[in-house]
Parts: sequence; structure tokens; C-alpha cells
Amino acid sequence: MFIELDLQSETPIYAQLVDQIVEGIASGALQPGDPLPSVRSLGEDLGINLHTVNKSYNLLKQEGFLQVHRKKGVIVQPDGMPGVTDAFEEKLRRQLRSLAAEAAVRGMTEAAFTQMSTSLYRDTITNRGGEQR
Amino acid sequence: MFIELDLQSETPIYAQLVDQIVEGIASGALQPGDPLPSVRSLGEDLGINLHTVNKSYNLLKQEGFLQVHRKKGVIVQPDGMPGVTDAFEEKLRRQLRSLAAEAAVRGMTEAAFTQMSTSLYRDTITNRGGEQR
Repeated sequence: MFIELDLQSETPIYAQLVDQIVEGIASGALQPGDPLPSVRSLGEDLGINLHTVNKSYNLLKQEGFLQVHRKKGVIVQPDGMPGVTDAFEEKLRRQLRSLAAEAAVRGMTEAAFTQMSTSLYRDTITNRGGEQR
Repeated sequence: MFIELDLQSETPIYAQLVDQIVEGIASGALQPGDPLPSVRSLGEDLGINLHTVNKSYNLLKQEGFLQVHRKKGVIVQPDGMPGVTDAFEEKLRRQLRSLAAEAAVRGMTEAAFTQMSTSLYRDTITNRGGEQR
């Protein structure tokens, strides 16, 4: 499994898990229809509480990134990923605004901030193919 | 005071307060040396716990955005803002990566993501002058 958690981080574990699964989908490491480990097995592998894994899976299911099947278990959404919703755009704006403000106060230029945003977007998708299991 | 908190948000209150003070500094609404309300008075104004305000002020002091004086109380850093530290760059990369991944999965193009990053950077600083008290 490609998941690495930082137990010292300010970011809650469930949110790190959500982020990394979405990053796995973006990079193509996780393909539509791919199975994910069961709640129990992922919790045990990562050494974290089952409720935490459950919270992450539920959020990802609610957002439409995962499906939970009685037979197949948890799989990556096979019927098309969710689009840019109002709620996502709102979250994106809020978080980018906060990062941009801190970057500006710390003296990072608009060009440097834009450049970093672009290159991270590229990184996130251009591992497609490279990170396949 | 320009602070608006969303008590329903997933983002903890102390983090919202930190973000908004940094955004105030970025926009110029808060100038170096400007006084901030005392912990008690801000807590009462916003209807939030004093420990929460204290946590935000302490984080901002640790990062170098605020100074706490015995006489002057809490003021915006008058001796130059902190620069782009390794820790900030690390946080920026991590959060941008996560946002970029979700944007990509939802079908937002690189151009749209870059455009939004740039325009939010601009917004955050081009209120300078407009939002002065």
C-alpha cells in the first residue's frame, strides 16, 4: 500500500488518509473499480483505529470517490468521478486564500506561488503510469 | 473587527482565527505594530473560548507574525515578517498537492487551477488600502 501517515502532524489522521487516497486516484495508482483494503485490514496495516479508517472511507463514499459494495467491498468509483461542486470550489477558494495570504506575508512572490501551484498539479497527475502497482 | 468565524466548519476555530489574522496582515488591514484585542476581549467579542484565542495568538507569536508585550499587549510584528521557512514550504507543498489532486480528479484543468491560485494571491494583497480601518 502506498499510504504513509505522519502521526506527529497537525492534520488529523482521517484527513491524511482521505488526501492520500484522492492523490492515489489522481496519479492513477488507484484506478476506477480497483478494490481497497477492508476497514479492518487497512486499520491493522497502518496501526490506526478502525473508526478512523471508517470515517475516511465514509467521507470518500459521500463525496463519490469510493463505492461500498456488499460483495466487492470498498472499490474506487467506477461510474465516473464527481465533478467540481460548489462545495469543492468553496473549499478550494478558502484554502488557497489562506495559503496565498501566508505566502504573500512571508514574501513569496505571485510568480513563485503560481509556479508552485502549477508544478504540484502536474506532479499529482504525471505520475500516471509510473506508480501503477 | 474583520473576523468572521464559521462555527459549522470542519476547520477548527483556532485555525480559522489564525488564517484570518494572517489574511488581515496580507491585505494590509493589519499593519506592523497595530494592536490586536486582548485575549479576553476578542474571546468575548467572538463568543469563543479564551483558550482558543490564546492558542491562535500563541501560534502566531511562535511563527513570528505577532509580538506579545507586557505593556503594549498583542501587536502585529513590527520588526519584519518571517520569511519562507522550510516548515512553511513543506506545509504549502502538502496542502497544494492535496488540493491539486482533488481538483484533477474532479476534472478541473491545470489552467483553471493555476488561474484560481493566481487570482486568490492577487485578491489577498490587492485589498491593501481598501480595507484599512
